[in-house]
Amino acid sequence: MINFKNDYSDIAHPNILKKLVTHQSESYTGYGLDRETIKVVSHMKSMFTKDIDIHFLTGGTITNKTVISHILKPYEAVISAETGHIFVHETGAIEHTGHKIISVATKDGKLTPEMIQSVYQSHVDEHMVKPKLVYISNSTETGLIYSKQELMLLYDTSKSLDLWLYLDGARLGVALNAKTNDLTLDEISKYTDLFYIGGTKNGALFGEALIIKNNTLKPFFRYSIKQNGGLLAKGFLTALQFDALFEDNLFNAIAISANESSRYLIEGLHSLGLELHSTPTNQQFVTLPNEWIKALENKYLFEVWTMGDMKSTIRLVTTYQTTKADIDSLIRDISLLMNKEGLA
Amino acid sequence: MINFKNDYSDIAHPNILKKLVTHQSESYTGYGLDRETIKVVSHMKSMFTKDIDIHFLTGGTITNKTVISHILKPYEAVISAETGHIFVHETGAIEHTGHKIISVATKDGKLTPEMIQSVYQSHVDEHMVKPKLVYISNSTETGLIYSKQELMLLYDTSKSLDLWLYLDGARLGVALNAKTNDLTLDEISKYTDLFYIGGTKNGALFGEALIIKNNTLKPFFRYSIKQNGGLLAKGFLTALQFDALFEDNLFNAIAISANESSRYLIEGLHSLGLELHSTPTNQQFVTLPNEWIKALENKYLFEVWTMGDMKSTIRLVTTYQTTKADIDSLIRDISLLMNKEGLA
Amino acid sequence: MINFKNDYSDIAHPNILKKLVTHQSESYTGYGLDRETIKVVSHMKSMFTKDIDIHFLTGGTITNKTVISHILKPYEAVISAETGHIFVHETGAIEHTGHKIISVATKDGKLTPEMIQSVYQSHVDEHMVKPKLVYISNSTETGLIYSKQELMLLYDTSKSLDLWLYLDGARLGVALNAKTNDLTLDEISKYTDLFYIGGTKNGALFGEALIIKNNTLKPFFRYSIKQNGGLLAKGFLTALQFDALFEDNLFNAIAISANESSRYLIEGLHSLGLELHSTPTNQQFVTLPNEWIKALENKYLFEVWTMGDMKSTIRLVTTYQTTKADIDSLIRDISLLMNKEGLA
Amino acid sequence: MINFKNDYSDIAHPNILKKLVTHQSESYTGYGLDRETIKVVSHMKSMFTKDIDIHFLTGGTITNKTVISHILKPYEAVISAETGHIFVHETGAIEHTGHKIISVATKDGKLTPEMIQSVYQSHVDEHMVKPKLVYISNSTETGLIYSKQELMLLYDTSKSLDLWLYLDGARLGVALNAKTNDLTLDEISKYTDLFYIGGTKNGALFGEALIIKNNTLKPFFRYSIKQNGGLLAKGFLTALQFDALFEDNLFNAIAISANESSRYLIEGLHSLGLELHSTPTNQQFVTLPNEWIKALENKYLFEVWTMGDMKSTIRLVTTYQTTKADIDSLIRDISLLMNKEGLA
Repeated sequence: MINFKNDYSDIAHPNILKKLVTHQSESYTGYGLDRETIKVVSHMKSMFTKDIDIHFLTGGTITNKTVISHILKPYEAVISAETGHIFVHETGAIEHTGHKIISVATKDGKLTPEMIQSVYQSHVDEHMVKPKLVYISNSTETGLIYSKQELMLLYDTSKSLDLWLYLDGARLGVALNAKTNDLTLDEISKYTDLFYIGGTKNGALFGEALIIKNNTLKPFFRYSIKQNGGLLAKGFLTALQFDALFEDNLFNAIAISANESSRYLIEGLHSLGLELHSTPTNQQFVTLPNEWIKALENKYLFEVWTMGDMKSTIRLVTTYQTTKADIDSLIRDISLLMNKEGLA
Repeated sequence: MINFKNDYSDIAHPNILKKLVTHQSESYTGYGLDRETIKVVSHMKSMFTKDIDIHFLTGGTITNKTVISHILKPYEAVISAETGHIFVHETGAIEHTGHKIISVATKDGKLTPEMIQSVYQSHVDEHMVKPKLVYISNSTETGLIYSKQELMLLYDTSKSLDLWLYLDGARLGVALNAKTNDLTLDEISKYTDLFYIGGTKNGALFGEALIIKNNTLKPFFRYSIKQNGGLLAKGFLTALQFDALFEDNLFNAIAISANESSRYLIEGLHSLGLELHSTPTNQQFVTLPNEWIKALENKYLFEVWTMGDMKSTIRLVTTYQTTKADIDSLIRDISLLMNKEGLA
Repeated sequence: MINFKNDYSDIAHPNILKKLVTHQSESYTGYGLDRETIKVVSHMKSMFTKDIDIHFLTGGTITNKTVISHILKPYEAVISAETGHIFVHETGAIEHTGHKIISVATKDGKLTPEMIQSVYQSHVDEHMVKPKLVYISNSTETGLIYSKQELMLLYDTSKSLDLWLYLDGARLGVALNAKTNDLTLDEISKYTDLFYIGGTKNGALFGEALIIKNNTLKPFFRYSIKQNGGLLAKGFLTALQFDALFEDNLFNAIAISANESSRYLIEGLHSLGLELHSTPTNQQFVTLPNEWIKALENKYLFEVWTMGDMKSTIRLVTTYQTTKADIDSLIRDISLLMNKEGLA
Repeated sequence: MINFKNDYSDIAHPNILKKLVTHQSESYTGYGLDRETIKVVSHMKSMFTKDIDIHFLTGGTITNKTVISHILKPYEAVISAETGHIFVHETGAIEHTGHKIISVATKDGKLTPEMIQSVYQSHVDEHMVKPKLVYISNSTETGLIYSKQELMLLYDTSKSLDLWLYLDGARLGVALNAKTNDLTLDEISKYTDLFYIGGTKNGALFGEALIIKNNTLKPFFRYSIKQNGGLLAKGFLTALQFDALFEDNLFNAIAISANESSRYLIEGLHSLGLELHSTPTNQQFVTLPNEWIKALENKYLFEVWTMGDMKSTIRLVTTYQTTKADIDSLIRDISLLMNKEGLA
C-alpha cells in the first residue's frame, strides 16, 4: 500500500533514530532536567529574538490541553474556528479541563480579527463565559497558512482586547516552508503569546516544543505539565530528537521535501483536470467519483474527508518519505480510472 | 558519575532500539490501530487466562489519571496509602480529574483489608465522598511486594465492598522477579480489576501496558485515553517496544538483572554493618551520616529519601545497567568513609 | 417602573410566604431529610404514573449542572439547541464539570429528531466526544412549547440511539398551562428520562423540583447534589414552598395568570399592527424603532433581546403580578409613540 | 423532641421573615443587581476599615467551592486541618473543582504557623501540588475560636509564604460573641484575605456574605458565582435577610443568645461531674455511657460525635431558640440516668 494517509505513519526520520542509538550508553537525569535538554533548549533559544521558555511535550492534544489548563481561569474560554483541532478532534479534552470553546464558522478554517471582535462583543456579562484565548493552527487543519500580515493583525486584535494568542504548530514545519509563506519562526514568537513547534508530524518519534513568550504565562508551567500527565520520565528523549531536528537544517528539510512532493502531486492532479482544493503545504483535497475512490483504496492509503452520494473529497498527505514514483503511480491510476480502465 | 538514582536514566535497552531501527522503513496506521499493535496485543492476551483488554500509554501518571477518570463517578473516591504515588508525586493529577484520594497511614506502604474496611465504614453518607477504587502499587514506592495471599485478601475485600482494585505496576517487573515473590502475571489479572505493566522503568524508552480484566470497565476506554491526551499518534512505537520486551524473556531478564544487583548491593552494605532498610526489589534504603552522603554525592547519583540533622536515609536504585564494579566502588568508598578516609 | 423584565422580580407569591410564616415555630431535620420534605415528595409522587425520585434544588443552573455532572461519563457530551440556556447563559457551568455541549442551529430553539440523528451520526469515533444527553427546555428560552407528538418523537429517537432525554422546566408552569399545550405533567415523566419543575420563575422564593424517572440515573443523586454545592441546610424551606405550590392548584393558577396577561398583551400589540413574534406562554417579542424603545425605558422594565441599527426586538415577560392596567398603559404609550407623541 | 442537634433546624428568626413579608409587594432587579443589595452592601462596607467586596451566596459548601475555584490555579492546593469542613463533609466538592486539599493533623482542629510552614517546606517541586490557600474555620468544626494573636500569626505566616488565608465563618456569629473572643469583625478582614459571615446557622433562611479584601482576588468573582451555580435569580432575598441581620444588632443578639444557653448548659453538665469537652461557643461535647445516650434519644435530638464500645461522645448545639427549660430538662434527665432512674 502506498501511503497518502498522514504524516505520522513512519517510525521516525533516520537521523532521529541514529541520534538515540549514538547516545545509547549514556545516563541522564529524569524529567527533562538533563544536560541534553539544557543544551537543546539553549540552542533553540538562540533562534529567537525574544526571551522565551521552552517545554517539550509528547503530542499535540496533551500540549493543547496543558496550555489551556495552565493559562485560563475557570470562567475563561477559548475562541477557535469550528474546524479547529481542539473543537472537533480531541474528544472534549479542553472541556475536560473545565473550559468552553467558543466556535466560529469560517470560510477556510482561518480566524480573522472581525471574528474575534464579534465573539468578544457578544460576551457581555457574567452570565456568559469570558473569552480570553484565541486558538489558531498554522498550517490549519486543511493545510492553509497565515501570512505575516494576517498574524500581525490577529495579534494586534488579541492585545487590544486583552486576549492571549496561541498557535498550534502541529504542522508548523510545512507552514514555514511553504512557497507562499512570508513568516519566520522568530516572527511567530513575536506575533503570538505562545505556540508549539510540532515534531510528531515532521519526522520525530513523538514530541512537540512549546515556546512561551509572554512572561505572565511562564511561571510554574512544569507543574501543569506534570499535573496533566505529560512530564515524560525520560524527557531527554524529546530533547535528543529536537537536537537532531535542529541540526543540519533537518526540521526544514523534512518539511521542504513534503511540500515539494505536494506540489508535484498538485501538478499531476491539475494535468488531469480534476476538481482540486490545493494548499501550499502537504495536504491536498481532491474530489473524485465514489467508485474511483473505492478502486484506489485497494492500492493507496488516504482519508475520505467529506462523503457525498456520488462524489467524495479525499485528503492526500505527502511526507518526506513520499516518492515521485508514489505520485506518478497515483496519477496514472486515476488517469486509467478516467478512461474506465482498471488500476495499473 | 555512577548512577544509583533511578531506573529511568537510560535511553532504552539495546533490543528496544534495535527493534525500532529494524522497522525503520515501514509504514503504520496511526493511534494504535496498526498491525503491530494488533499482533502484540494478541500475543500478550495469550499470557492471560482471563479475557482482558490491553491499552498502551506513555507513562505512569497519565495511566493513573486516565484509569481513574474513566472508572469513577464524580463523587467516588480512591483509597491509597499515604505514600502512594498518586497521593504524593503526581501534582494533584487525580484531583485535577475531580476525585478525592482518601489516604491511609500504613506501616510500610502496603494496604491491608482492615485499612480498606475502616475507610469504607467511616464514609457513611452523602456528605462524604463514596470510596470506590483501591489503589496499590507492586512493587510499592519503597520497593516492597505483595504476596499472593495478601493480594487475594485485598481483592476479596474489594469485591465484598463493591470496590474496584487497581494495581500500579510501574515497577511490576522487579516485583514479579523478586526472590520472595509468589505471584504470577496471570494471577495479578485474577486478583485485580485492572493493572498496568510498566515499561518505562524496565528498559523501554517509554510505555505502560494497561490490562483491564473487569468487563464493566472496558467499554470506551480509548475515548478516555484520547480525552486525557494520552493517545499517541505513533502508537505502534509502544507496541514495538512491548514486542521487544516480551520476546526472548527480555522483560523478566531486565528485572532479574536489576534485582540481582540489588541483592549484591545489600550484601555489601550488610558487610559494613550499616543501618539498612532492605527490600526484595531494586530499591534499597540505607541510613548514613550526612557528611558521608555529601562526600558520596561527588561520585554517585542517588536520592536523599528522608533528611535528618545528623544522619539521612538515601535510596539506591539498581537497574539492568548496574555493574558489580559500580557496587564494589560504592561499598569501598563507604568503607573508606567509615575509616575517616576520602573516597577512592 | 412597570415590570415586563422577567418572572423572578417578586419576593414570592403570598401563599408561599404565608406557608413559611405559619410554620415559623417548628423545628426540622436538616438537608432535606425532614418530615415536610417526606410529605411533599409523597404527594408529588402521587401525581405520576411512573415510579420517580424527587430532589429539590435551589435554582436552574445548579440543577442543570448537577444533573449533567451526575449522568455523564467524562467523554460524554450534551446535545443542545444553540439557544439553549446551558449553552449560552450559564457561564460555562456545564463545561466546568468537564463536558462538551454540542450545539445545534435551530429554526426556533426547538430540537428535532433529525437534528439529534445528525449529531449522533457525525460523532463516529474516539477522537470526538460521545453524544449521550439531549437537553431541551419547555417552554423554550423564547417561549415556545413542545407538543406531545414532538416530545414523544424526541424520546423515541433518544431511546433508539441510547441517549438520555432531559427537559429543563424552568418555565414548565407556563408551558403546561399554555392554550395550545396538549402535554400533561405525568406525560412529561413518560417521555423524558428526567426533568425539573421550575419554582423560581413561577412564584417561589427559589427552588426547582427535579423528577428522575430513569432507574439508572437515580442512585446516589444526593451525593451529586452535595458535591455541587446544592444541598441546602434548611431543605425543608424548598419542600414547604412546593407544598404551597401544589396546594389548591397554586402552581397552575400562577402560570395561567401569566399566560392570560400575555395573551391580552398580544392582542394589544396586534391591534397596533406591530411586528410581533408571539408565543403561547409568558414571553413575547416585539420589534420597535430604537427611539421608541429608549422612550419606553423611562417607564417600563424589559430586556432588549436583539439590537439593530434602526429597530430592535424587545422581550416582554408577564407574570401573575402583571395587571391589565400595566398592559393598557404600555399599549397606550406605544400608540402615542406611533403618533409621534410623548408617553402618557 | 427537644432540639440540641444543630443550628439550622428553624425556618428563620422572626425578624427575617418579617422583613420579607414587609417587602412582599415590591419588584426587584434579578441576580443581586437590585437596589436592596446595593443598600445592604453599602451598609456592610461601612463596617470595615479596608475596602472590601461583598457577595451573597446561598450556603457554606457552595461558598467554599466557589472561592477555591476562583482563587486557585489548577496545580495549587489548599491547606486544611484534617477536621476541616471542606476536607471531610463536602463530598469532595473542592476536589471536584480540581484541587487537592492537603490535610494536617491538629490537636484541636486549629491550624498553627508551624503546621503551615511544615506543609510549605515539604512541597518542594513540580511533582507535588503547590500549597497556596490556607483554610481555617472560626468557630472551628468543634466550637473553638481563634484569638487575635493566633489569627495575626497565621496571616503573617501566610503572607511571608505567599499564601492566601481564607476563613470559613459558617459560625462566625458565635465566635465573635464568645466571652473569650478578642477579635472584631473588622479585624478579621485585616488578618485574612477573604472570609464569609454565615447567615444560615445564625437565624437566616439561608445565605452567607463573602467578604473579599485582597484586591487580587476581587475581579470577575460574579463569573465564578454563576459558573458554580450559586447566582440566585432572586438575589435580593439574601440582601433583605442580611439587612435584617445587621439591623438593631440582630446578628450579634442571635449569637449571644446561643452562647448564653451554651454556658448555662456547661454549668449544668459540670454540676453533674461529667466528662466534658467544653467550648466558648454553641457546641458542647460530653461523653456518656451508651445506654444513657440511647435513653436520651427518645426525648432529645443531638448527634453522636464519636462512638465507643461503652461510652460515646455526643454533641449538644444551642441556638437562639434554646430555652432554659430545654437545658434544665436535659440536665435533670441525665441526673436521673446517673441514679439509674428513667427520664423525667
